[in-house]
Amino acid sequence: MSNNANADNSSNIVWHQHNITKNERAELSKQKPCVLWFTGLSGSGKSTIANLLEQKLYSLSKHSYLLDGDNIRHGLCGDLGFSDKDRVENIRRISELGKLFVDSGLIVLAAFISPFRTDRDFARSLLDEGEFIEVFVDAPLAVCESRDPKGLYKKARRGEIQKFTGIDSDYQSPTHAEITVNTETHDAEACVEIIMNYLTENGFLK
Amino acid sequence: MSNNANADNSSNIVWHQHNITKNERAELSKQKPCVLWFTGLSGSGKSTIANLLEQKLYSLSKHSYLLDGDNIRHGLCGDLGFSDKDRVENIRRISELGKLFVDSGLIVLAAFISPFRTDRDFARSLLDEGEFIEVFVDAPLAVCESRDPKGLYKKARRGEIQKFTGIDSDYQSPTHAEITVNTETHDAEACVEIIMNYLTENGFLK
Repeated sequence: MSNNANADNSSNIVWHQHNITKNERAELSKQKPCVLWFTGLSGSGKSTIANLLEQKLYSLSKHSYLLDGDNIRHGLCGDLGFSDKDRVENIRRISELGKLFVDSGLIVLAAFISPFRTDRDFARSLLDEGEFIEVFVDAPLAVCESRDPKGLYKKARRGEIQKFTGIDSDYQSPTHAEITVNTETHDAEACVEIIMNYLTENGFLK
Repeated sequence: MSNNANADNSSNIVWHQHNITKNERAELSKQKPCVLWFTGLSGSGKSTIANLLEQKLYSLSKHSYLLDGDNIRHGLCGDLGFSDKDRVENIRRISELGKLFVDSGLIVLAAFISPFRTDRDFARSLLDEGEFIEVFVDAPLAVCESRDPKGLYKKARRGEIQKFTGIDSDYQSPTHAEITVNTETHDAEACVEIIMNYLTENGFLK
């Protein structure tokens, strides 16, 4: 066997046995990947806080990605409606998506009402210890309803939307959220600061 | 209105109106996001080349992510079987996934046999002009069958697997692939070099 063949052979071994890992990908942005799972009533402020947090992370050169109704409901989950079965499948796919994006090395922000504990716990179960950060965006129903940014509460009260969370469908508050932010008493920037402190103290931002 | 209120107000406007864009995220890794869609027979070398390409990109601090059967079939598409309907849905979800990962700013490597032109064209249709790069991993059936890295051709020949691409199911070669690599005449490293040249010449790596 020639030297050349030897060289090819050993380089094949090196190349084939080493796949780039989650931690290596995350190292490109000097961060620890995770899912920040925002849960709360419609109008509680999930999207506002998640968007603001993305901007804050970006200003520090951290690489994040926001999953929300806008980019999920029309694409990957465009075949799903709002039956109980479809809602479960919707959250299942988003959870699997969160796992893939964490594996890709990103800080994932998921902003969905996600009213049921079992669904949120399923998303948590797919990830390694510490990678799932449940963020309870807390505000009284009356406050959320008075904000009503999309006019959905009005429609629900008129009976034009059925099974609307907080009106005629249950919202199950988290019992073990890693972070709780109260948007009745804190503005979005204060909430983002609380989350940034958590990320810093727990080693997600290097 | 106090100065303080003015300041708060204007900062709200700045924060809320600007969501971080695909290009901004991609800028973190000085790259242009895209999907490299590897298509070819089982045993043609898709995974080997994709893994090698990932390592090459990583060595240049480029942020990529590989989608393949290993991370898709058990998770996001774990509810799907191998009927025609389920195969179509499988490729649909992977295509939507590719779109989301491109939106997140990454260079996406998708390695699936994906034997049908309509499926690959669907994946292409979800993306902006130039973002979808079809990579035909070309090798004669006899060569792929002699490699048979997973023993699948033997099973198919014995009739233990039905509708196996190349045996009793069609493979439709790309008619407009951006890149074709021939793994009968080129080793994996030479194929990766061809792909890297394409990415460089077309401005995907800055």
